[in-house]
Amino acid sequence: MGKQYTFNYQVPFYQVDVNHKMRLSSLLSLALQVSGYQSEALGLSDQSLLETYGLVWVVTDYQLMIERLPRYREEILIRTEALSYNRLICYRQFDVLTKTGEKLLTIKASFVLLDYQSRRPHQVLEEIVAPYQAEKIKQRLKVPQFASFTPESKRTFPVLYSDLDQNAHVNNGRYMDWFYDDLPLAFLRNHSPKTIHLSYVKEIQATDQVSSQCSLKGTRSQHCIRSEAGLHAQAEIEWRQNDL
Amino acid sequence: MGKQYTFNYQVPFYQVDVNHKMRLSSLLSLALQVSGYQSEALGLSDQSLLETYGLVWVVTDYQLMIERLPRYREEILIRTEALSYNRLICYRQFDVLTKTGEKLLTIKASFVLLDYQSRRPHQVLEEIVAPYQAEKIKQRLKVPQFASFTPESKRTFPVLYSDLDQNAHVNNGRYMDWFYDDLPLAFLRNHSPKTIHLSYVKEIQATDQVSSQCSLKGTRSQHCIRSEAGLHAQAEIEWRQNDL
Repeated sequence: MGKQYTFNYQVPFYQVDVNHKMRLSSLLSLALQVSGYQSEALGLSDQSLLETYGLVWVVTDYQLMIERLPRYREEILIRTEALSYNRLICYRQFDVLTKTGEKLLTIKASFVLLDYQSRRPHQVLEEIVAPYQAEKIKQRLKVPQFASFTPESKRTFPVLYSDLDQNAHVNNGRYMDWFYDDLPLAFLRNHSPKTIHLSYVKEIQATDQVSSQCSLKGTRSQHCIRSEAGLHAQAEIEWRQNDL
Repeated sequence: MGKQYTFNYQVPFYQVDVNHKMRLSSLLSLALQVSGYQSEALGLSDQSLLETYGLVWVVTDYQLMIERLPRYREEILIRTEALSYNRLICYRQFDVLTKTGEKLLTIKASFVLLDYQSRRPHQVLEEIVAPYQAEKIKQRLKVPQFASFTPESKRTFPVLYSDLDQNAHVNNGRYMDWFYDDLPLAFLRNHSPKTIHLSYVKEIQATDQVSSQCSLKGTRSQHCIRSEAGLHAQAEIEWRQNDL
């Protein structure tokens, strides 16, 4: 088990949706920022990683198990630790808790180190991961496979300035907004996500035109983001009906 | 002069743009949240205002004077105070400072109280504004007039779930994203806003299809957001070239 890092947070109004619950796009971004704070605290900030090794951390996969999403103004605690790593992938967990310690949700994330110039995966360097005290493992952890689906809706749109992060790629969290935006408002008002599996396949550039494709059957939605360059991301969300 | 309220903040990665500067959409949202914190501290939270009086605060006008925008990871201080009010409008100022006290930007905002049910302006009640210790004035402060313009670009798009706040209207900050998204990426990489005047005319609902219209001449851009229901917002931005 790795070193833990915790961060206290209070959910502002601009991060909640019509259900007064924290947006998943904001929650994933916040979690990523907290892992950045841990790296800084361990002397391995993103900036030093880039300057010293020419490498950047990139998330390739998220799995979320959600009891309930944080509410507007709720005080929460984000606890994270690097669990383990193999030759190419680092596994990290985030737990989001109420201030009395009740667990709201868990995020399991896979990270790879990317060569900043070539944008290709780089093998994990011992000196980079050592301070996190995660366990070295041989195997690649299993992640669920995505079932194929026939899209019922397809929305095509340009990537805009406001979608981009400081690297001029679409911000990781923004994909979650796109998935939500494909579902009917009436459905979103009455349902909350229970489990989510989201994989990032290829970064999206500033100039791309993308299409977001979706299928909703019962309480399960399937999503993918494509462009002329191919598949960029896919996701599967299992929903639960909100209490009346 | 009214009571001051201050809030310390550090800019996270997900609130910065390709220039590594804080997005104006995030900055306006943060400022609004800080005024909400002040209201809470004075025992006049948005929730109590709604429950006791059936009223909500709504911003109608922003004027920004910007030296420079906060950077990624920069520690800033937001200081706000209610300056004055007349029969219908309350005037508030926000100053954003570096941690050593250097002023980065000033936001002057006009607020009205809206009847939550009818969505019509309600006259300012003494008991609601008294705790802020702002000055009562007779006149309506002058705001700059918007010059008419012939749009060079017009982008039409649906309002999406991710644009909505907890009241199912488009989040105030989101308009700034839309204005930015109308400008060329090359221009945005080389310019920063110097002054902004933004007026909100009419709220945008979940189901609206809106069009964002824009003209850019030299270092001045003019913007408006329209729908079938008419004009929703307009803005004028004076830009400065970034240092090379």
